Amino acid sequence: MKIAILGGTGKEGSGLGFRWAAAGHEVIIGSRTEAKGQRAAEELQAALPEAAIRGCDNVTAAADAEIVVLSVPYEAQQATLTDVRAVLQGKMLVTVVAPLGQPKARVMRLPSGLSAAEEAQMQVGRNVTVVAAFQNISATHLRDLEHPLDCDVLICGERAADKEIVAGLCRDAGMRGINAGPLANAVVAEGLTAVLLGINVRHKISGAGIRITGLPEE
Amino acid sequence: MKIAILGGTGKEGSGLGFRWAAAGHEVIIGSRTEAKGQRAAEELQAALPEAAIRGCDNVTAAADAEIVVLSVPYEAQQATLTDVRAVLQGKMLVTVVAPLGQPKARVMRLPSGLSAAEEAQMQVGRNVTVVAAFQNISATHLRDLEHPLDCDVLICGERAADKEIVAGLCRDAGMRGINAGPLANAVVAEGLTAVLLGINVRHKISGAGIRITGLPEE
Repeated sequence: MKIAILGGTGKEGSGLGFRWAAAGHEVIIGSRTEAKGQRAAEELQAALPEAAIRGCDNVTAAADAEIVVLSVPYEAQQATLTDVRAVLQGKMLVTVVAPLGQPKARVMRLPSGLSAAEEAQMQVGRNVTVVAAFQNISATHLRDLEHPLDCDVLICGERAADKEIVAGLCRDAGMRGINAGPLANAVVAEGLTAVLLGINVRHKISGAGIRITGLPEE
Repeated sequence: MKIAILGGTGKEGSGLGFRWAAAGHEVIIGSRTEAKGQRAAEELQAALPEAAIRGCDNVTAAADAEIVVLSVPYEAQQATLTDVRAVLQGKMLVTVVAPLGQPKARVMRLPSGLSAAEEAQMQVGRNVTVVAAFQNISATHLRDLEHPLDCDVLICGERAADKEIVAGLCRDAGMRGINAGPLANAVVAEGLTAVLLGINVRHKISGAGIRITGLPEE
């Protein structure tokens, strides 16, 4: 699949792009400026000579892709979606965004009473299906393909078929994706990000994650 | 410790009481009526002849205990706390309550924009310290002391010392308690209950739970 990652120069976005490119997907790294996107893509390409990775600005990236991944800080979500809204129509938007509290990132917040994913859905309109996923994964080991990722991905969205596609992207990145219900439940995954950051701070670790237990082995 | 469980006749409350009594705590099962509390306590006592378990109404239970556990449906929270508010003063209230969506329990909801735990804190006042815990544990295996519980407990509250006490109660019940930040983060644990219920339904299982990964082994 052709996957654009808006804000793909960041640690999490580039790490996911790295894993998806290694799994055979065509990855487009988007950034606010074309030059930054290209630089990040070149860096990834150097580490994966066989892969199909290129970089450009966010709007071009979103226009060229089948699936668009939003991986920007919450503070940049609204402006980024304003830029790409027109070219997103008819596509799936997978949002990785989790709002973090100010001044303490480890305290969860709901600036509008809605999850960031629901805000995104309202902004992009009904012709874009928004799915929330990857909020709780640590970027630490994404670039090391040999490193097993000890975490699950909660996937929230309205349509089972969309969530199946995202579950496939989870598998391709070395994780188990789990249907966590409708987009209204995205606040749980977004809030868990703050909880996990707090656990990282208190235990002086970098990669706290979650696993769902009680499921039959696959 | 002397632990009262308000709504202790339910599956989760009685299961926790069973494990705490087996660990040597004095357990008081509270119910809306004295007779129901006594009946539930007698049943637990029959299975644990050595343990100290008794039953009474919620107000007497809360008055007699050092730690009070709130294990009622969300719909009964406000009325129950109105009844026990006076006798709670100066104590710790551990709330297990998670509001579930209507009509779909697997969709999370925040009736007031606050977590049920924060609503409880507002209602009981500053002389009671509210700690949220045990929202995400399955009652299925609580009565089987030999059954290992494959889940962690997220503990949210304002004071580290209170959370340490609750972490001890987690250990005594066979689980690992994890400091998940301030009471504002309780919405995550409460929302996870809806997510886990949905996972149970979709996978036809009864005991989905969560584990925090990335922590050093104890």
